[in-house]
Amino acid sequence: MSRFSSPQDPLFQALNSSVAYDYRLAPYDLEQSSAHARMLARANVLSAEELAEIERGLSTIREEIDSDSFVVAPDDEDIHMAIERRLIELVGALGGKLHTARSRNDQVATDVAMFVRAHSLSAIELVHDLMATLVDLAERHHDWAMPGYTHLQRAQPVYLSHHLLAYFWKLRRDADRFRQAMTAAGELPLGSGALAGVTFETDREGLARELAFARVSANSIDAVSNRDFVLDYLAAAATCATHLSQLGAEVVLWSSEEFGFCQLPDSFASGSSIMPQKKNPDAAELLRAKAPRVLGHLAALHGVLHGLPLAYNKDLQEDKEHLFDAVDTIELSLRVARELLRGLSFDRERMADKAADEFLAATDVADVLVRRGVPFREAHGLVASLVRRAVESGRTLSELSQAEVAELAPQLSEDGLGELLASGAFIESKVSEGGTALARVEEQLEHARTALREAKP
Amino acid sequence: MSRFSSPQDPLFQALNSSVAYDYRLAPYDLEQSSAHARMLARANVLSAEELAEIERGLSTIREEIDSDSFVVAPDDEDIHMAIERRLIELVGALGGKLHTARSRNDQVATDVAMFVRAHSLSAIELVHDLMATLVDLAERHHDWAMPGYTHLQRAQPVYLSHHLLAYFWKLRRDADRFRQAMTAAGELPLGSGALAGVTFETDREGLARELAFARVSANSIDAVSNRDFVLDYLAAAATCATHLSQLGAEVVLWSSEEFGFCQLPDSFASGSSIMPQKKNPDAAELLRAKAPRVLGHLAALHGVLHGLPLAYNKDLQEDKEHLFDAVDTIELSLRVARELLRGLSFDRERMADKAADEFLAATDVADVLVRRGVPFREAHGLVASLVRRAVESGRTLSELSQAEVAELAPQLSEDGLGELLASGAFIESKVSEGGTALARVEEQLEHARTALREAKP
Amino acid sequence: MSRFSSPQDPLFQALNSSVAYDYRLAPYDLEQSSAHARMLARANVLSAEELAEIERGLSTIREEIDSDSFVVAPDDEDIHMAIERRLIELVGALGGKLHTARSRNDQVATDVAMFVRAHSLSAIELVHDLMATLVDLAERHHDWAMPGYTHLQRAQPVYLSHHLLAYFWKLRRDADRFRQAMTAAGELPLGSGALAGVTFETDREGLARELAFARVSANSIDAVSNRDFVLDYLAAAATCATHLSQLGAEVVLWSSEEFGFCQLPDSFASGSSIMPQKKNPDAAELLRAKAPRVLGHLAALHGVLHGLPLAYNKDLQEDKEHLFDAVDTIELSLRVARELLRGLSFDRERMADKAADEFLAATDVADVLVRRGVPFREAHGLVASLVRRAVESGRTLSELSQAEVAELAPQLSEDGLGELLASGAFIESKVSEGGTALARVEEQLEHARTALREAKP
Amino acid sequence: MSRFSSPQDPLFQALNSSVAYDYRLAPYDLEQSSAHARMLARANVLSAEELAEIERGLSTIREEIDSDSFVVAPDDEDIHMAIERRLIELVGALGGKLHTARSRNDQVATDVAMFVRAHSLSAIELVHDLMATLVDLAERHHDWAMPGYTHLQRAQPVYLSHHLLAYFWKLRRDADRFRQAMTAAGELPLGSGALAGVTFETDREGLARELAFARVSANSIDAVSNRDFVLDYLAAAATCATHLSQLGAEVVLWSSEEFGFCQLPDSFASGSSIMPQKKNPDAAELLRAKAPRVLGHLAALHGVLHGLPLAYNKDLQEDKEHLFDAVDTIELSLRVARELLRGLSFDRERMADKAADEFLAATDVADVLVRRGVPFREAHGLVASLVRRAVESGRTLSELSQAEVAELAPQLSEDGLGELLASGAFIESKVSEGGTALARVEEQLEHARTALREAKP
Repeated sequence: MSRFSSPQDPLFQALNSSVAYDYRLAPYDLEQSSAHARMLARANVLSAEELAEIERGLSTIREEIDSDSFVVAPDDEDIHMAIERRLIELVGALGGKLHTARSRNDQVATDVAMFVRAHSLSAIELVHDLMATLVDLAERHHDWAMPGYTHLQRAQPVYLSHHLLAYFWKLRRDADRFRQAMTAAGELPLGSGALAGVTFETDREGLARELAFARVSANSIDAVSNRDFVLDYLAAAATCATHLSQLGAEVVLWSSEEFGFCQLPDSFASGSSIMPQKKNPDAAELLRAKAPRVLGHLAALHGVLHGLPLAYNKDLQEDKEHLFDAVDTIELSLRVARELLRGLSFDRERMADKAADEFLAATDVADVLVRRGVPFREAHGLVASLVRRAVESGRTLSELSQAEVAELAPQLSEDGLGELLASGAFIESKVSEGGTALARVEEQLEHARTALREAKP
Repeated sequence: MSRFSSPQDPLFQALNSSVAYDYRLAPYDLEQSSAHARMLARANVLSAEELAEIERGLSTIREEIDSDSFVVAPDDEDIHMAIERRLIELVGALGGKLHTARSRNDQVATDVAMFVRAHSLSAIELVHDLMATLVDLAERHHDWAMPGYTHLQRAQPVYLSHHLLAYFWKLRRDADRFRQAMTAAGELPLGSGALAGVTFETDREGLARELAFARVSANSIDAVSNRDFVLDYLAAAATCATHLSQLGAEVVLWSSEEFGFCQLPDSFASGSSIMPQKKNPDAAELLRAKAPRVLGHLAALHGVLHGLPLAYNKDLQEDKEHLFDAVDTIELSLRVARELLRGLSFDRERMADKAADEFLAATDVADVLVRRGVPFREAHGLVASLVRRAVESGRTLSELSQAEVAELAPQLSEDGLGELLASGAFIESKVSEGGTALARVEEQLEHARTALREAKP
Repeated sequence: MSRFSSPQDPLFQALNSSVAYDYRLAPYDLEQSSAHARMLARANVLSAEELAEIERGLSTIREEIDSDSFVVAPDDEDIHMAIERRLIELVGALGGKLHTARSRNDQVATDVAMFVRAHSLSAIELVHDLMATLVDLAERHHDWAMPGYTHLQRAQPVYLSHHLLAYFWKLRRDADRFRQAMTAAGELPLGSGALAGVTFETDREGLARELAFARVSANSIDAVSNRDFVLDYLAAAATCATHLSQLGAEVVLWSSEEFGFCQLPDSFASGSSIMPQKKNPDAAELLRAKAPRVLGHLAALHGVLHGLPLAYNKDLQEDKEHLFDAVDTIELSLRVARELLRGLSFDRERMADKAADEFLAATDVADVLVRRGVPFREAHGLVASLVRRAVESGRTLSELSQAEVAELAPQLSEDGLGELLASGAFIESKVSEGGTALARVEEQLEHARTALREAKP
Repeated sequence: MSRFSSPQDPLFQALNSSVAYDYRLAPYDLEQSSAHARMLARANVLSAEELAEIERGLSTIREEIDSDSFVVAPDDEDIHMAIERRLIELVGALGGKLHTARSRNDQVATDVAMFVRAHSLSAIELVHDLMATLVDLAERHHDWAMPGYTHLQRAQPVYLSHHLLAYFWKLRRDADRFRQAMTAAGELPLGSGALAGVTFETDREGLARELAFARVSANSIDAVSNRDFVLDYLAAAATCATHLSQLGAEVVLWSSEEFGFCQLPDSFASGSSIMPQKKNPDAAELLRAKAPRVLGHLAALHGVLHGLPLAYNKDLQEDKEHLFDAVDTIELSLRVARELLRGLSFDRERMADKAADEFLAATDVADVLVRRGVPFREAHGLVASLVRRAVESGRTLSELSQAEVAELAPQLSEDGLGELLASGAFIESKVSEGGTALARVEEQLEHARTALREAKP
């Protein structure tokens, strides 16, 4: 019996019903309900027999869910109501006792928090796998030279290992962010009732322990209105997706004919419907294209929360689809990124060839001048004049004559640029901590391996 | 036979495959393919018999789609490939001729344009229905007074009809925007091939006519990279959703106990899982909560397109889910808004009571002074001093004594504020064009009815 | 005299005051105020002498604004109050009459509409200039071959003119969008008062004519709450910025050493603080980076409007900074894009060399088979096997032996691939309307020149 | 001397130059440069005399900046170049030595990290102040009853203290987020050079210590491309702004005539330009309206980073304006929120009156039935039928006759609803941990005071 005199309009139901998507909260809802029932039994709201009956019912439902035989009824507004309805079918009116001292408002917040915790952990594991893959790749290519770019212009040579490890550290920060989301979701809302608490002295600490929450929420109004942990997850996922978009963009670039730095595995490439020669980096492009999607979800949830008065409002139901799609997107993206990277084969010769571009030594030439006492800013100008002469006459730096060097940068005239421009010299010169000199990369790899062990989820 | 030596990785397929969602383009794809086949026949690429065979095959597929008996194969990357694969099953190798002079790049752009055109039209129709509902409601409540608000503070009284019609004009602009999206999608990409055109002199004008496109695209590279029309649709939908969010927010406000301006129909209200007395405006709240979702899709697609080089990139596949969900969201929202409004019952007395608040006449009092020669800014100050006196002593304006009025605003002392403050006088004073005086509202209703007829989709 | 007993808190003023940025509305506010004063005179609210005095005062203020000698007072909350305050200083209490029959709510909406109209026009002009630049460039490079890309993999050869003109059509649609924003801003809010209309029968049609609005708003509540035209402008600007981000990204790519398709003018390039050889495409990178900024403004304004009840709310003040920065960003970006393009120099030989890549002819080879009766899908497979053989053995297509061709694609054995693979043959084969064959590009250029003339702002 | 033969185009400079806004990084740049100079001296790149000279020059510049007498030259592209240029003016060519072993790429990343650290700390302090204000307010109103809302419908009574403390816990999480941003910005980029490290063995650990960074970056390519800490700050600020938007929205609602729960201080209210009676909550509205702005900046920076290849790209310059405006917005908003709250005066009687609404006891009535053995779901139905009877006949629950109660809910017939519905009984019934019963609120206040002490920045 409800207080309403007419049934819900089907259009309203179409908008209002969430069971089509919150169905995936079922495992969390069942786990929560079991713990809640045990708590009610400890509080003498349920007898031992009643508890056993309810646990039996919930267990049957869990089997139905697991075997995909659970049937959603047309009037089941959400998974919580579907489960309660089914429980009453299975154990009779007794099933109606389960909702004692609980409201959907704290119930759903608890389910979502459990979901966020579980998927933060999945994300951490997947990020960890990708980090491990990057370390492997870096080890296998630790001394492969390639041009480093700024502004997509060749800047200075680096080792491929060094470039790949840059992503390692980005991902490590991503893992930290997912960990923070997991911590944020570690506060139990259950027991907050509709908004004000409940009329029973419930054992919330016990519930938290059973459901592996680190603590209970301190304020019932905050608890039912709080979706910060979803924002935290989405922010972590958005930043991670942005990193993957950069990685994807680089794979697209590197596998172009113009760069030619790497070949995609056939198993991660697509053909064209019309051009028989094509081998397209669709996977890498999609890694790039997914970042705005995840960001869109974060922005949308902020929008939903904007200007909402306390405590619970139905608007909060819009948290779920944004969260679920973000989870699916980032988890699949992380898996694909890992396998895609594992399958890449790099072209050592081609990269080395481009890394040997003498112009990439210009900073080093300036630094030689610095060591001879020329202020850096001045040294920079002298080398720029050498570069300009070379470029204008279509030559490399070492093709400039002794006389030209003497004219433009007398401090260099003595030994010319010879040794420095000999292949390899200027890549090994970046000896500062965190730099690309091999010894530093080895040090960094060691550092990364330690970080990987420590970050083991 | 492909140029690849290993099959696609299942993880890659999970990311890459779009058939799960682009399946809904099937009707457009089939219509397009029929027209394309007829064009190929006119160009003598297909014989009459071949055309007949292909049309028969396509028609069988259409029936399979309509009856939900079409079976997607595991390797069907998208709906286009699924249909071609099925066609070849049905008519043999001949089916492979259909892709002559066509690439998936122009094919998918054409499908999406057809989809945008069809759903722009749906949106226009639904917006039109909602506009008609607003006119009906305004007619039925044309002389019901209510307080008008600025800053959510009572400002001046208005008629409910006038307030409701404000949404009419917002929606009318929304219809214009959907119309512009429809126009933008009226350019045929088909015939642009992969990016450069095709090697056959195809009859694109004829194709455009058959498929009801207004014109053909002028540049093949633009045609396969262009998703502007999707942005246009999403921008129209986002603005429309923002308008509905305002309408939803007002219904939430008005149906609160504090405002009490209207009652929701039971058929568009929800109860609470725990509080038996609750009658919650979930429909209105969800209208409010959906706007950020639609906006999220617009922002995401902009993000996808950001910095993409020409011509086609796989990133463009990310147009579809954003578009589809936005379409479903706005169409359902418009339907719900219409039915929700139809079901509202307003509380005439309660609104009138609040509209009679004398402070709402303050501007009119100032205007009386203006007509007696006091500059408006000064008049404003004089009335403010009357208001302050009243507020500080907990009285209404008409409870101020003659002496007080004479002291604070001598120009009013003669006749006091009497007549003006008599109920109704100051709502009818807003006689300017577009104002709330009844005659103006009648004029506006007439104007709205005309607009409605003209905007008939 | 206000109704308040204490002055505004400085912190509140810091948040509330908008004069620091809405100052730039001054010219529109003055123009509006003059027209409003003349209307008041026609309505006999102002005498001819009073009008003259007020016009004199406004004219003095305009001079002060123009010469940057206008002094904003600490308590001037916004430019409207600043101007009224100054007017009263200049012409005495009479200045206080100007606000008769007007509220800041309709006044500011009118100013913003005028601003949007003016800057939509600027944008159209700048877009037009950029379109003209693209036509010039396309004419100068009409028969320069380059590889066309899909998925950033070489796909089919195109002419540079054809590629550049793709942007022409994108921009043409941008011009349409700015035109729609201009139309949307063509509805006069003035005369709507605070929200309900005013107590004077004002001549709004006359005002609209004087201020060059196409029509008057039909509903006062809509008029003061409406910011749709700002959304329209921002949506147009966001799409245009997204197009420019693609153009910028391509210039970055093309000016990389790996592509080497073009050289930046020195006047649009940056050096490095440390690497003397660098010539960085900062301008192109910033064109790319500005799109998210403009989109951010659009998203933010939608957010501001989300769930706002009617009529005016202070939140609407947040329209201005988003609008102003978007205007400045897109106008500067359009100017820079034009000059940057004008200064690019392309490397004909390098592009032609890459366009001659035989694999780019694969579709044409398949089409040859089609003309010999092989269904396209089958032809595609045959050519794919040729490509695979070539790729696996590190050869080009024409290096395959007669025997190999006969084995893999017997239908081609007769004449091999000779003529087709001869340079140039396969770029000229794309003869469909809108395709890249020279005759089609000439046709397109003619079409573009006409469009340019017609779109003359 | 540069490698370029022509000067930068003024349009390019207008787009490219950042000195107008990155000027505010000057203090950080100077602090960094001093530390860098001392490090160069330790590394023998600078002599003691040279160091002294450079420190003298930097100190002069600091004074010029502080006294606003520093003059930016037309060609100063950014604050870093402006300071170097000025240094060379002050100390001669020697100034050119400062850029040894440093690039603008690591320099600017370091400045921005320092800025983020400083402003994360400011935000934490301001959040802390606001939390303290909430505790004060809650203490002063700890036993003031008010209706609690869900779906903006009255749900159950709560204490104002409990409602206010809900914001306390939201803000406490905000402080955590700003702390995480501060940690994220605690990694020193300096020493990473342009992207590959530098040719000097620089003492980065020493630099980190001097500049109060917790550690040095592990990978130079990551260091110059990393803006994660800006994203972290912006995500923290966006969530905090969203919380403030909810607080602002509630103040708007509560200060409406319909709610009438609180009065704004005159010092935080605005009048109307036309309606003398108005007292508008502009401050609260602007708190609401600022959230989308901060979110817009977060979304924009994600957009900027989307798909960017490593290492440094000019696009990264777009980090600054987004960051700076977000900082200014959130810091001002936090200050205003604090003062606004301090100034609110609540209407105890009005809130209590509405909290006494008997329907708010419906859940408690159901819970009475539960204690008598009725399953909750059934009890909910019985009470719903009582509510329905009351609503349909325009009565309160206690106005139902004994007979009616006996008919609809026989279990209640004995003692009716009397005691329970006696004022106050049902607000004190929410005794669960975190609930609104007074004892629980006192407990919570104690908890909050502890949290406040611990969170002391």
